[in-house]
Amino acid sequence: MSQQSFIPSGYITLTTDFGACDPFVGVMKGVIAQRWAAANVIDLCHGLPKYQPTVAGFWLTRCWPYFSLGTVHLAVVDPGVGSSRAMKWALVGGHAFIAPDNGLLEALEASVAWQASGTFELSDLVCLNLGVVSSTFHGRDVFAPLVAELAAGRIRVESLGRPVTPGRRAVTVANEALGSVQVIDDFGNLLTDIGVERLADNRYRKILYASQVIDIKETYDSSRVGEVTAIVNSWGCVEIAVVQGNAQQRFGAALGDPVSLVSSD
Amino acid sequence: MSQQSFIPSGYITLTTDFGACDPFVGVMKGVIAQRWAAANVIDLCHGLPKYQPTVAGFWLTRCWPYFSLGTVHLAVVDPGVGSSRAMKWALVGGHAFIAPDNGLLEALEASVAWQASGTFELSDLVCLNLGVVSSTFHGRDVFAPLVAELAAGRIRVESLGRPVTPGRRAVTVANEALGSVQVIDDFGNLLTDIGVERLADNRYRKILYASQVIDIKETYDSSRVGEVTAIVNSWGCVEIAVVQGNAQQRFGAALGDPVSLVSSD
Amino acid sequence: MSQQSFIPSGYITLTTDFGACDPFVGVMKGVIAQRWAAANVIDLCHGLPKYQPTVAGFWLTRCWPYFSLGTVHLAVVDPGVGSSRAMKWALVGGHAFIAPDNGLLEALEASVAWQASGTFELSDLVCLNLGVVSSTFHGRDVFAPLVAELAAGRIRVESLGRPVTPGRRAVTVANEALGSVQVIDDFGNLLTDIGVERLADNRYRKILYASQVIDIKETYDSSRVGEVTAIVNSWGCVEIAVVQGNAQQRFGAALGDPVSLVSSD
Repeated sequence: MSQQSFIPSGYITLTTDFGACDPFVGVMKGVIAQRWAAANVIDLCHGLPKYQPTVAGFWLTRCWPYFSLGTVHLAVVDPGVGSSRAMKWALVGGHAFIAPDNGLLEALEASVAWQASGTFELSDLVCLNLGVVSSTFHGRDVFAPLVAELAAGRIRVESLGRPVTPGRRAVTVANEALGSVQVIDDFGNLLTDIGVERLADNRYRKILYASQVIDIKETYDSSRVGEVTAIVNSWGCVEIAVVQGNAQQRFGAALGDPVSLVSSD
Repeated sequence: MSQQSFIPSGYITLTTDFGACDPFVGVMKGVIAQRWAAANVIDLCHGLPKYQPTVAGFWLTRCWPYFSLGTVHLAVVDPGVGSSRAMKWALVGGHAFIAPDNGLLEALEASVAWQASGTFELSDLVCLNLGVVSSTFHGRDVFAPLVAELAAGRIRVESLGRPVTPGRRAVTVANEALGSVQVIDDFGNLLTDIGVERLADNRYRKILYASQVIDIKETYDSSRVGEVTAIVNSWGCVEIAVVQGNAQQRFGAALGDPVSLVSSD
Repeated sequence: MSQQSFIPSGYITLTTDFGACDPFVGVMKGVIAQRWAAANVIDLCHGLPKYQPTVAGFWLTRCWPYFSLGTVHLAVVDPGVGSSRAMKWALVGGHAFIAPDNGLLEALEASVAWQASGTFELSDLVCLNLGVVSSTFHGRDVFAPLVAELAAGRIRVESLGRPVTPGRRAVTVANEALGSVQVIDDFGNLLTDIGVERLADNRYRKILYASQVIDIKETYDSSRVGEVTAIVNSWGCVEIAVVQGNAQQRFGAALGDPVSLVSSD
């Protein structure tokens, strides 16, 4: 367990699957401003696929280094809201993360920058004077007040609930050549969990997806418009794309589709 | 008419049906910043159903308590833009509201926290030095400058145009058991106008929708994934949902669909 | 070439085709805040049609006057990211613009308020200490740090790369009566490139689109709900609309569809 305290910078990021059709995110910002007017709130993303905590975890793990040290990152993808599911905090690289305890923070807890984690319950938050807590909108009634207090430095994240040692810190990859589609972005690109480190020895320069062998290139520009290509993207993952087109539509792709590296031997 | 003055806090919320495909909301923020650089602008929602002022009113009525006292709430769902429709202000619970005079603020005027309302015309805004006013974008040319001045405290909302006494303050419900779908949220949940107060005497614990009798439960979690359920939601309304699914798609639901409480007797 | 220096006000606007499903815009804001915490960032639009720089240029040209003098406007619609395409800056009306050199800024360079332009390469940005630059996300790795430094006044935009004289400043319209659909907004309205100046002599009061002759009216309100109408919109262009309906769906409209003014003679 790290001895390093979290020093809040006043920044809060918000990540949800709430979409843009309803005032849910806006109301959370109202609650944060009521609690602590000086908070600097940045929307990370609210259009994530619904009910899929691991997609939120995929992005948080890759995005936090681009924010200021001392940022509080709140992620609410919460299909179990109102049930007895606990909540979780994590400290990673001098940043604090708050989310439902539903696997959302697992990828962060497996990262090398991980420092500490803990679980907590509503009963651990009496100091927040939350008032009525609904069973369907903890983003507004629990998480928003909590991250406002954390960003203001009026509550210490390490003091919340019970510390835990993540169970999955040592991730073993069964086969370095196998992976799957983890995220489909708004351009229709297919982001896989095959990281650049698996390409290090130059053995693999092609990927197999949907019965098609695709060369892994340096830039989108190495291919022609409309052509299928693979690339190591800006997040360090192999990504399958159609140049200026949409790979999801081309392939009828879905999350979890298998991909595999093809040996050059 | 209340004697209490509105004391602006510098916060402005924006609610529109403009969507995210065009720069309309961004330009309104530019105009606000030109007028008063210190404004704190929070997006409440811009993905509301187009041309339906009452949906915006539904949400404003339920959301304002989560913002700071002294907030100016601007809502632009304005199918009559450029016509001779007037504009309206309302003071509710120490918050100010500005909208076209098209029914958008009616639900707020029927609420217990209502303090005062008034209507005004373009000709009442000469003090704003508006320059050219287009006939198609009053959000940019009229409303944005107006709320900037109100939030800055340079114009008093009570001084705009003519005071009115809302005609519909005393809402009579013909039958406590009857209601309809008022909002369909981005999760596909169906929000009705049956409020929690109608369930107070425990006579009703079921709701009838689309020929299906549905138990009203405490949390989504009381049902299985994919099951139809009803719940008193975080806004105090009965809501019909499919657990981790989409009730709009399941039922082919539309705004205005009738619902009714089913007596347990 | 103008002698006037750009004096940054601290405002930055962001315009992209990134959509709302991914954290790409959020991460750019994190990078800006890391570089210069005092930046005032306003989203102009992130839902623009993908891979179409000219649509971004259409909107930037019409929107910048609504922002504060000294604003830095960053637009990233960048199908050539990672290729050898250069980047471009322009000074227009006391505002600075940054974009890929792919035609996005052409409309601005043809405007009467144009002051100066220049192109630059990654190699011109060594003073930024950019670290690793990916080949797929220059918005995050290049443009966000750059506009933070420009808005902070720590780099002078005129000093970037090589000045250029825009080649297309004198735009000649082959036939004043001809135009095309330039933008389809989220309401389904069709915005054309026929500007209000072409209607000045009162010769044209009708427009031909999809074999239909449509009267150009003053407001949407001059027509009935559901009726096709044309109007000079709030951006000074002739726009084809269905009153409280969707012209894109009605006509099956697409970008580039031809329109022409019909003489009243």
